[in-house]
Amino acid sequence: MEDVSRNNRGLALNTATLGHNIPGAGAGWSPERTIDACAERGINGIVFWRREIESSPARVGDYARAAGVHVIGLCRSPFLVGPLSLRNPLQITDDFHRSIDQAAELGAEVLTIVVGGVQPETKGVSESLKIVADYLSHAVPWAAAANVRLALEPLHPVYGGDRSCLTTTRDALNLCDIIDSDILGVAIDIYHVWWDTDLPHQIARAGNRIFGFHLCDWLAQTSDILLDRGMMGDGVADIHGISAAVRAAGYHGFSEVEIFSANNWWKRDPREVLDVMTKRFHTAC
Amino acid sequence: MEDVSRNNRGLALNTATLGHNIPGAGAGWSPERTIDACAERGINGIVFWRREIESSPARVGDYARAAGVHVIGLCRSPFLVGPLSLRNPLQITDDFHRSIDQAAELGAEVLTIVVGGVQPETKGVSESLKIVADYLSHAVPWAAAANVRLALEPLHPVYGGDRSCLTTTRDALNLCDIIDSDILGVAIDIYHVWWDTDLPHQIARAGNRIFGFHLCDWLAQTSDILLDRGMMGDGVADIHGISAAVRAAGYHGFSEVEIFSANNWWKRDPREVLDVMTKRFHTAC
Repeated sequence: MEDVSRNNRGLALNTATLGHNIPGAGAGWSPERTIDACAERGINGIVFWRREIESSPARVGDYARAAGVHVIGLCRSPFLVGPLSLRNPLQITDDFHRSIDQAAELGAEVLTIVVGGVQPETKGVSESLKIVADYLSHAVPWAAAANVRLALEPLHPVYGGDRSCLTTTRDALNLCDIIDSDILGVAIDIYHVWWDTDLPHQIARAGNRIFGFHLCDWLAQTSDILLDRGMMGDGVADIHGISAAVRAAGYHGFSEVEIFSANNWWKRDPREVLDVMTKRFHTAC
Repeated sequence: MEDVSRNNRGLALNTATLGHNIPGAGAGWSPERTIDACAERGINGIVFWRREIESSPARVGDYARAAGVHVIGLCRSPFLVGPLSLRNPLQITDDFHRSIDQAAELGAEVLTIVVGGVQPETKGVSESLKIVADYLSHAVPWAAAANVRLALEPLHPVYGGDRSCLTTTRDALNLCDIIDSDILGVAIDIYHVWWDTDLPHQIARAGNRIFGFHLCDWLAQTSDILLDRGMMGDGVADIHGISAAVRAAGYHGFSEVEIFSANNWWKRDPREVLDVMTKRFHTAC
């Protein structure tokens, strides 16, 4: 067991991989049971979703740390723009602040930001990205005071309309340049950016602004654009190449496995999922 | 009628908009009936799919020209790489040549090229794009001899795995640079590229290499990634902005409406679809 534990250092579970984020689906495990299952396998990082920890963030964070598991992140900010965001800007700001506060209470190092889609009554992404920049510039001091870093996650362009007008690492870094804060960086998620031939250049440009690195795969013939992500090695993404670029840029943090898979991995025994992702971390990443 | 006809000059129908490309679905009209319906409305351009014209391309082309309708394109080349391509490279080359020959017999000015997804046994898009470049360099002399221009169409990154490892206008122009032929250019399809903040720069870079411009829209909350495209004005794409950029780059060809919509437009009377697209051409483009 000791050898396995040492081997898996630097591997993190995003709890979405066990299907937690859909009520009634997936493992249905408590945060504590999930933490224990990670610790048993030497998976020494974990990322929660707000709904899982919001009743007792500090207690869950303490439990993880006592088990030797780092809480490396919390998913996620509210949508800041787009058809799925709250209607009232004050509500959005309040919920953005609350998500930062929850990350702080949990002791999570990073809050992931998913910005939301195209703002209603506008066309294209430019105006929406300007609104996002406004929200970010106001949230950065709040996050700095809470000692939480913010990771902008560009999502795959298929979500451009509703979930994220931010679709490339280039655009995420452009936002970082505008805001110009040490606590604002990017998350690189293979599922979202694997197709982008500009990615190596943008990863090098990011340098120490990479705050998160998400492992998964893009299935060649994906059946669902939300809930059919692949386990590392089962798809067509160049995981080795992207991982090498991220390391070369200076990122030495965790590799976080985040797989939404309603019809495959979420239907399996969560212990099997953890075992397979641990194995693939070594053979396919 | 005269006024309407004059107003609609420069508008073209891609027959996919009437659902022709799915057997048993859509209008079910013959090429001739479709041509007549365009001519009646002053829609003076048309683009066919191979399956619609392959029994008699020359006859269909002559019929269109006699009706005053330009056959501006043929869809499309076979997939050159990826899981949906033919297995044997010689078969792919043969079918690529056949598609060029059919375009020539039809009298179509341009053959659209959709390159196919990630080549099996490889990861990422780089190796696949190199194979595509090889096929293109061999096809260009054949196309030049047939007096057919080739338009590389980057598809939305959601198709990166199976239908098109070519996902950006940038990558399409990079291929054009490599091949360096006057008969190789790009097609700009709003559905595929609307999300890309680099698009204005790439359109300017393209200049006279824009061989086609496709109108449609991206619905904010799209229900299907293949067959749920929006009518111009119903989605979130900045159609005015993209159209202006394409014109500013020097493109003065047709605007081609191409809408795959199994659950909406394909279920309507095709005469209504033609009327609506004609109206939207003026109000939303």
